[in-house]
Amino acid sequence: MPAAGTGTGTAQIGVTGLAVMGRNLARNFARHGYTVALHNRTAARTRALVADFGHEGAFVPTETAADFVAALERPRRLLVMVKAGEPTDQVIDEFAPLLEPGDVIIDGGNAHFLDTRRREARLRERGIHFVGTGVSGGEEGALEGPSIMPGGSAESYESLGPMLEAISAKVDGEPCCTHIGPDGAGHFVKMVHNGIEYADMQLIAEAYDLLRRVGGYTPIQIAEIFRTWNTGRLDSYLIEITAEVLAHTDSTTGKPFVDIVLDQAEQKGTGRWTVQTALDLGDPVSVIAQAVFARSASGHTDLRQAYRGLDGPTAHPMATADSNAFADQVEQALYASKVIAYDQGWKMILDGSRDYDWSIDQGAVARIWRGGCIIRAAFLNRISDAYRQRPDLPSLLADPAFADEVTGAQDAWRSVVATAAASGVPAPAFSAALAYFDTLRAGRLPAALTQGQRDFFGAHTYHRTDRPGVFHTLWAEPGRAEVQQS
Amino acid sequence: MPAAGTGTGTAQIGVTGLAVMGRNLARNFARHGYTVALHNRTAARTRALVADFGHEGAFVPTETAADFVAALERPRRLLVMVKAGEPTDQVIDEFAPLLEPGDVIIDGGNAHFLDTRRREARLRERGIHFVGTGVSGGEEGALEGPSIMPGGSAESYESLGPMLEAISAKVDGEPCCTHIGPDGAGHFVKMVHNGIEYADMQLIAEAYDLLRRVGGYTPIQIAEIFRTWNTGRLDSYLIEITAEVLAHTDSTTGKPFVDIVLDQAEQKGTGRWTVQTALDLGDPVSVIAQAVFARSASGHTDLRQAYRGLDGPTAHPMATADSNAFADQVEQALYASKVIAYDQGWKMILDGSRDYDWSIDQGAVARIWRGGCIIRAAFLNRISDAYRQRPDLPSLLADPAFADEVTGAQDAWRSVVATAAASGVPAPAFSAALAYFDTLRAGRLPAALTQGQRDFFGAHTYHRTDRPGVFHTLWAEPGRAEVQQS
Repeated sequence: MPAAGTGTGTAQIGVTGLAVMGRNLARNFARHGYTVALHNRTAARTRALVADFGHEGAFVPTETAADFVAALERPRRLLVMVKAGEPTDQVIDEFAPLLEPGDVIIDGGNAHFLDTRRREARLRERGIHFVGTGVSGGEEGALEGPSIMPGGSAESYESLGPMLEAISAKVDGEPCCTHIGPDGAGHFVKMVHNGIEYADMQLIAEAYDLLRRVGGYTPIQIAEIFRTWNTGRLDSYLIEITAEVLAHTDSTTGKPFVDIVLDQAEQKGTGRWTVQTALDLGDPVSVIAQAVFARSASGHTDLRQAYRGLDGPTAHPMATADSNAFADQVEQALYASKVIAYDQGWKMILDGSRDYDWSIDQGAVARIWRGGCIIRAAFLNRISDAYRQRPDLPSLLADPAFADEVTGAQDAWRSVVATAAASGVPAPAFSAALAYFDTLRAGRLPAALTQGQRDFFGAHTYHRTDRPGVFHTLWAEPGRAEVQQS
Repeated sequence: MPAAGTGTGTAQIGVTGLAVMGRNLARNFARHGYTVALHNRTAARTRALVADFGHEGAFVPTETAADFVAALERPRRLLVMVKAGEPTDQVIDEFAPLLEPGDVIIDGGNAHFLDTRRREARLRERGIHFVGTGVSGGEEGALEGPSIMPGGSAESYESLGPMLEAISAKVDGEPCCTHIGPDGAGHFVKMVHNGIEYADMQLIAEAYDLLRRVGGYTPIQIAEIFRTWNTGRLDSYLIEITAEVLAHTDSTTGKPFVDIVLDQAEQKGTGRWTVQTALDLGDPVSVIAQAVFARSASGHTDLRQAYRGLDGPTAHPMATADSNAFADQVEQALYASKVIAYDQGWKMILDGSRDYDWSIDQGAVARIWRGGCIIRAAFLNRISDAYRQRPDLPSLLADPAFADEVTGAQDAWRSVVATAAASGVPAPAFSAALAYFDTLRAGRLPAALTQGQRDFFGAHTYHRTDRPGVFHTLWAEPGRAEVQQS
């Protein structure tokens, strides 16, 4: 075994963990002219990669951890692509002893940002850079150009950044990769990306459900509607693939594909983490939460059994002209709700950055999400522009263009939410988005009553609108005098 | 210092931590004929309690931890009433070495149930019972009879239970206290109680806001409406105090009290814990979540500043007859939404009990919440009855009476949600409750589309409605063939 530190390797990057994501990222690096060291727990996968794709570039297959480390030029850059959680710690424990100060371990899995913070702090003590990195775009993105969200030290980004930028997606010549911020910032931002993705998908699901059950359209017709929407302000990867999925016919039954898929949505956890983290930050991410809840509700067969068959409104088929007008309203409701969902996500990034001292550039996040990732969309250009004009934008709705669009869409949006309620078609995310809009623009909120109740039953005190201080009313005493507490 | 184990004390219970909750519980025990040992970090509080309330019963004031322990009969029962978190661990560390196997430490604070599980496991190794106990009812409840939710071992309840039942609230002669289940079960159930309390309060806040801004009623008139509601199926402590708060006039300004309170609701964390725990359990507690979010949204002055002034619908004053009809609809919406919020809470208890192997009696939880606690209500009798008739009730909506009431209220409920959307008055909890109802009773959900999208962009696979197995469609290939994965 070559002693650590004698490395005379020539590979600029090593990838350990060669399942589909790791394999495709390794190929992407090789295609961009980098020499890529390869390592996998079972060597068969390493050999298969070289056999199948060796012609694409310079690969250095290795079998042992020591060989892998020795194959890398210094400072070494090791990209870990294993399952998040315990396996990541195992790989770190295996490689860290073989590394030297200045070397870089990159975790490209979907780790929880708090785990990344813990790992980064531990490795920093030994002078090793740990770069928790969000990678979005699925298998295809990993190969063709993902959106990449690296955290970790600024120093690590100096040598690593150019390589990551090279393999990332490009939009208008700009790479979809930037240094997000210290320690867990990259994985935090990736988590919020996924939370927004949940919201986006749920809003699309509600739009489809309303078009079908209220508008009376068939899946094929709805696919066409989504195709049209994809030429406008909703232009995005998710809208595009929605049309593809809805237009697909099941080959076995000849029925619309969407009708033969079991209607129980699954999830892998990042949406849940987003909402749990938002609760810790005190951020009301109601649209993202409704998306997570909609997925879990769909899987509760016991509850669905208990509620199934409960009477609801009778559907009234619409005339074609009405359907067309309704589809236009749904587009507006979808767009306005989407702005709100993204606003909730950006607010989380703002508050996470503040709480963890990450100094995240909010506009840069929009910029690197324009391509490569699942939520890529023309819309992200708009957000990017808004932050270019005002880097300290407190909310998307503080941008005059977004404010105009959302207020302009509200008549349709309100009508769609009201129609959903009247028709018995669930629209939890549309409704939550509208309630969020109406909550934040309200001059006065009934939270004042809540504070009054809390003071009544728990002496929790309240503030007043007309003078500073903390007050408690002696509710149990005659006269109910107010007492200033501080 | 008397050695541990020589205890010849006569106090049946000791209370350490004599802030208002601890003091009132100590007095409650004394008033019920128990001899109560007292201890506090600063002895002045102990002396003050005896000076002020010594006439109420038998108190044994002590100054040191050793004296306190020595004052207790064996097995010793120590009720810890300190701030949840670090202080609780400190007190345990202080007293545990002085105790013997069979002794019982009761934590009556609002601890997180996972902390309680950790503490219980640690003390169990030493043979000491640790009883994490929910106590609800605020200061007054602690003194006059709270609702008490003890966890911990069944053995500990044998000696402790009768004392807790004695000081608890009584409804129809039954104590509002029962053994909830092992380790953290008591604190878990108390957490869910508080989550439901958040939902209840938010639903009331939305009802008030709608009556005022849509119905055109004054706070005094709304107080009268709530008083009327309190004579019907909504009869509850929270409705009762809502009327009190709304009827109160601020003495300084002569304005309605609710108009001079700052409209930023605060929270202490148990609502947030409820939602975070529900996410871990996979339970879609959307109404509780919206209540937590409504509070945090109200406090985001930066967001409210950004949204303030955005155009909304213009209010149209209602004719009196319309207002009266609207108030009736709001009552129905409030009731139906309340049933949904409670259903979400009970589902959490069901799933928590299953995941942690607690064997919680769902009906007993309803029974002990009928009195003493903040959500006490005639309504809890109804839930208790439903579980008496069917102990394995999977959902409140599986009870025919609740199903009839909710489906019967739905026209009004739908109308109120639609009116809120059209009027620009936020009703996030009403809307979430209705969307939950419509989600769970739906024959087909658009979750099928979500699964199709996930398979398209991430090869996450799907199930079919017509045959078992796991499937993936080769979306990128011509023909888009379906491949069975397993």
